[in-house]
Amino acid sequence: MNFCSDNVAGASAEVLQALANAAAGPAMPYGDDPLTARVEKRLAELFEAEVAVSLVATGTAANALALAALSPPYGAIYCHRDSHAAVDECGAPEAFTGGAKLVVLDGADAKLEPATLEATLRTSGQGVVHHVQPACVTITNATEAGAVYTPDQVLAVDNVAQHYGLPLHMDGARFANAVAHLGCTPAELTWKAGVDVLSFGATKNGCLAAEAVVFFRTDLAADLHFRRKRAGHLFSKMRFLAAQLDAYLTDDLWLANARHANAEAKRMSEGLSRLPGVRLVHPVEANEIFAILPPGVRDGLRADGFAFYDWGDPAGGVVRLICAFNTDPADVDAFLASAARHAEQAA
Amino acid sequence: MNFCSDNVAGASAEVLQALANAAAGPAMPYGDDPLTARVEKRLAELFEAEVAVSLVATGTAANALALAALSPPYGAIYCHRDSHAAVDECGAPEAFTGGAKLVVLDGADAKLEPATLEATLRTSGQGVVHHVQPACVTITNATEAGAVYTPDQVLAVDNVAQHYGLPLHMDGARFANAVAHLGCTPAELTWKAGVDVLSFGATKNGCLAAEAVVFFRTDLAADLHFRRKRAGHLFSKMRFLAAQLDAYLTDDLWLANARHANAEAKRMSEGLSRLPGVRLVHPVEANEIFAILPPGVRDGLRADGFAFYDWGDPAGGVVRLICAFNTDPADVDAFLASAARHAEQAA
Amino acid sequence: MNFCSDNVAGASAEVLQALANAAAGPAMPYGDDPLTARVEKRLAELFEAEVAVSLVATGTAANALALAALSPPYGAIYCHRDSHAAVDECGAPEAFTGGAKLVVLDGADAKLEPATLEATLRTSGQGVVHHVQPACVTITNATEAGAVYTPDQVLAVDNVAQHYGLPLHMDGARFANAVAHLGCTPAELTWKAGVDVLSFGATKNGCLAAEAVVFFRTDLAADLHFRRKRAGHLFSKMRFLAAQLDAYLTDDLWLANARHANAEAKRMSEGLSRLPGVRLVHPVEANEIFAILPPGVRDGLRADGFAFYDWGDPAGGVVRLICAFNTDPADVDAFLASAARHAEQAA
Amino acid sequence: MNFCSDNVAGASAEVLQALANAAAGPAMPYGDDPLTARVEKRLAELFEAEVAVSLVATGTAANALALAALSPPYGAIYCHRDSHAAVDECGAPEAFTGGAKLVVLDGADAKLEPATLEATLRTSGQGVVHHVQPACVTITNATEAGAVYTPDQVLAVDNVAQHYGLPLHMDGARFANAVAHLGCTPAELTWKAGVDVLSFGATKNGCLAAEAVVFFRTDLAADLHFRRKRAGHLFSKMRFLAAQLDAYLTDDLWLANARHANAEAKRMSEGLSRLPGVRLVHPVEANEIFAILPPGVRDGLRADGFAFYDWGDPAGGVVRLICAFNTDPADVDAFLASAARHAEQAA
Repeated sequence: MNFCSDNVAGASAEVLQALANAAAGPAMPYGDDPLTARVEKRLAELFEAEVAVSLVATGTAANALALAALSPPYGAIYCHRDSHAAVDECGAPEAFTGGAKLVVLDGADAKLEPATLEATLRTSGQGVVHHVQPACVTITNATEAGAVYTPDQVLAVDNVAQHYGLPLHMDGARFANAVAHLGCTPAELTWKAGVDVLSFGATKNGCLAAEAVVFFRTDLAADLHFRRKRAGHLFSKMRFLAAQLDAYLTDDLWLANARHANAEAKRMSEGLSRLPGVRLVHPVEANEIFAILPPGVRDGLRADGFAFYDWGDPAGGVVRLICAFNTDPADVDAFLASAARHAEQAA
Repeated sequence: MNFCSDNVAGASAEVLQALANAAAGPAMPYGDDPLTARVEKRLAELFEAEVAVSLVATGTAANALALAALSPPYGAIYCHRDSHAAVDECGAPEAFTGGAKLVVLDGADAKLEPATLEATLRTSGQGVVHHVQPACVTITNATEAGAVYTPDQVLAVDNVAQHYGLPLHMDGARFANAVAHLGCTPAELTWKAGVDVLSFGATKNGCLAAEAVVFFRTDLAADLHFRRKRAGHLFSKMRFLAAQLDAYLTDDLWLANARHANAEAKRMSEGLSRLPGVRLVHPVEANEIFAILPPGVRDGLRADGFAFYDWGDPAGGVVRLICAFNTDPADVDAFLASAARHAEQAA
Repeated sequence: MNFCSDNVAGASAEVLQALANAAAGPAMPYGDDPLTARVEKRLAELFEAEVAVSLVATGTAANALALAALSPPYGAIYCHRDSHAAVDECGAPEAFTGGAKLVVLDGADAKLEPATLEATLRTSGQGVVHHVQPACVTITNATEAGAVYTPDQVLAVDNVAQHYGLPLHMDGARFANAVAHLGCTPAELTWKAGVDVLSFGATKNGCLAAEAVVFFRTDLAADLHFRRKRAGHLFSKMRFLAAQLDAYLTDDLWLANARHANAEAKRMSEGLSRLPGVRLVHPVEANEIFAILPPGVRDGLRADGFAFYDWGDPAGGVVRLICAFNTDPADVDAFLASAARHAEQAA
Repeated sequence: MNFCSDNVAGASAEVLQALANAAAGPAMPYGDDPLTARVEKRLAELFEAEVAVSLVATGTAANALALAALSPPYGAIYCHRDSHAAVDECGAPEAFTGGAKLVVLDGADAKLEPATLEATLRTSGQGVVHHVQPACVTITNATEAGAVYTPDQVLAVDNVAQHYGLPLHMDGARFANAVAHLGCTPAELTWKAGVDVLSFGATKNGCLAAEAVVFFRTDLAADLHFRRKRAGHLFSKMRFLAAQLDAYLTDDLWLANARHANAEAKRMSEGLSRLPGVRLVHPVEANEIFAILPPGVRDGLRADGFAFYDWGDPAGGVVRLICAFNTDPADVDAFLASAARHAEQAA
């Protein structure tokens, strides 16, 4: 019973079956195959827009390729202090851009605040040769704190970005969870809200290893494929990336998976929040829970076999719990029962 | 009936089954899972050596990570003019090393000649600040021309490299085909012949997308994992890379696959070479055939539905034909029958 | 009467004369000349230590080369939020390191606080593959706020750095001003206080364009000369860099120049601080003054022909005033008289 | 009596005087000074064109900045095998471009042959994702072999480059020597012959350390100043670079200096070629001589105190001799007398 991350989960049966199907017969390599073409078409339909697409296998690659298309080596990329790009990618954005600078900003629930962004950009030295040049803004939806930007909130960030001429990137490693939470269309949460490039995640939500970089401003994608190849991310047997995404998009599997994960996380967070001494640190809008548990509860759960990470400064006592597309509701029940038992003992 | 490349083939049933098996249950991410540990152990056993291993999904990533471990940004990497690293990776080695220079050398059948390497290194300006500094040598086995270095030939290259203090990398995108051809052990063709780092390919030979960078000099791998992560090549659900390689190594599937591909290529090349006007351009030692076909034969084959690439300068009239792990012998028969028919008509 | 920066000043007569002298006769290029050898010897004597030295023409180059020797591409460099490396070099450290990350920390008077550094390093993820790896610490002395670290303060930073195995770099663009203020030896302010590499500035303090990167840990300088060449900073007629530094070090010109600049800044700051409505924002320990002036005083001074920069957020009303090695005391007198007159009018 | 290089020479008296003059009084830093503006205006006049200019201190920086403006990281730069950019800059072009590939081509007298360039570009894989993308062509004038491209020869190279959409860069480290040899205008040898960017060298020809990157296609210079700053090549006291170039351009000092160097080289080469056993390896059109000397002559000259380099493979017996702007004709006389004496003894 592992709640450490959504990437401890396996993969959807439909995705696995799609791989087996895709293996039959020859297919031209490097994306010149019908499955890849189909996925590109499907993404255009899903987003109701002309898009330029590049399939890759990791979220780090998706983000770094997107940011490299948006920032020169002497660029500044504005992001949240806790964003995956800033914290968890061992400098991949710096590597792919040729040395751009990530300017990290504070904001509640790992969201970029428009006012903070504006204050930073106002004194950024745009056009002054001594300073790295504002290049783009990147936000994560759902955020690394499990919160979800609404389309209006995205638009508010974009308004600031646009004022300074900066394109907007969205890290959508958990984009499905955000859409599932909001009940909006993918278009409403992206280009209609000012997003120029999206890292459309699938790995965490039922695929094995598949992500799509989706450019709504196709003019920015001119050298995308060269950069992908050069980074070693052009798959020879591309059909196997495409097959995953094809299954993922079929019959809204991506949304069904995300709804399940969100629902279990919601149920778990509600159960937890009823226990004495438990405090939720962030709103639970996607599939992630950040909570302070009484030490007895935390340790008791682990003794009972539940796995999850401590988060941030250990002194803070925060734990992170994540539900996945395939989290067994019985496991959540068992988790809540264990937590309740240990909370009672502690009281 | 597609002989364009071994990457137009799908994947071995055993590999697909391994993916399905691996999807069951949770597994810790980023390589902290039992399957990854098992693959690392298996590679150590296969190579009869202590090794440092990094799994990635593409050959370009494997090569570029290996070379980045061997060359500083101001380094020179010595390779054959036709090598994949020099020609077909859109500058990935340059990107991963931070701008090293690939020095390309000539040699028959895409093999590096020890004497040519020696002559180049002798005047390379080692230690002189104006020149990029000799950093490493990389060879490909089987070569891009379908030839195979013997262990002695590898050793001869390594003797030169060692004389100048340079480590030796082997691009083994078709390592299995080389071993299958030679009948030697993997150890004999690598570290026993002086190879310090191997890109152990599996994608072309029955996997979907899986390669292993294998360091025999583990001291050179100190920052390998940081570089992999930073390049976006650390898979969160690593078990799915590991599962492919696990199946690939089980019961010598890798060798069986390569033997099949080699045998069909041999058979095809022998059939072709009996036809009037056909000339083999390189020895057929692995699964690749480079041949000059009479135009009537070439065009007739294509009219009959056989797909293959023209190679090099179109004026040369060379075509490349590749057999894969799953090439149907009946397809080879049909190909040879078609070729014979067209050759007869031309005569 | 220009107090904008110490780089609006020309150059010491002794330095200019040294250039003229150096032009006579042939000299071998790229540093193989007696003047360069003499400067290296002089620096060793000045610092009472074996040193590895690389001469360059700009402070940005000196800092970036030093940091590139201390940080891999996946490294984190810890520095003050207002440091020149972080703010004023258009990403040169990122460029030279191949994409390292500058982690910016707060601290009064642009000094790094040991406790802040410690708190940051404690949770930096050292050894964890997802995070950039702590590589080095850099401080500036005198700081960008015109304050001076004492040897004890440097040592306190170094104690933290050493605890995490990190080398310490000092940006000494105004090192002379710091030494002049403290009255200590150069050794006491550098390697005896834990500094491993120093950017020894001379341009701002009487040279035309000359800086020395001085490695006290010579083992870290192994590839320094290759990196300098590759960055285009190896001068063919190196003697002209060396000549400047030779004159700069002769008869303690460097200290005399700095003492003059410091003294005039001190005098100016003391005069200003006596005026109503004037507030010094930082201690004036070197040759820089940061002060809030009443608007009438600020504008009146400018109307009288005194040039100086507004600093930081314009709303803050802070101005920066810098005295140089050749600031005419009469200009300072005139400045203070003008300021007093305008302050009186405002009162 | 040193004929090793033109960079063993000092500097023109006029240039030194200009530095002394420039040191008087304050000047705004980083190029916001009247001298820099004047030099930019003078270069526009000299080249009879609107130009974008960036002053730097080394030829390596000039070339690398120019090439970085012309090539993306995944670009291919076509140059001669013996070009300074390919051989003598420790990979600076690779560093500044972020890892572009220099494709080296053969050609007599270190000149790029249009036919060779065309044959290479025809099979370069333009637009194919696997290959680095043709980005620009760079030639050196005068060449590294001491030959000079005529405007027609430059145009012939440019015709090929243009056919493939590639801009043309000229490394003009010895541009003055080329113009002096040809007697044409600077415009005729550059933009009128298709050159888009010129590295206008001055260091070798009488300056201390000063070069100008001159863009005739100003649209290509959009981010030039950011790249210069980021590379550490923006001088704070820019007036001291400008002053050198100002003097260099005044009263055609640059041409007078080059004419002197060329004339002495011509005289020396003619004297040498009359001696038995001496063979000139390349035409002597600028200030460089490449000659095979009988061993007795070569050793005798050195015994008599003349310094010069062996060149290329020592077995070839080639030496390089360079005359500078200030080479004393008496030294050339003495050299020829010594050579004649030793040639006689050998006979």
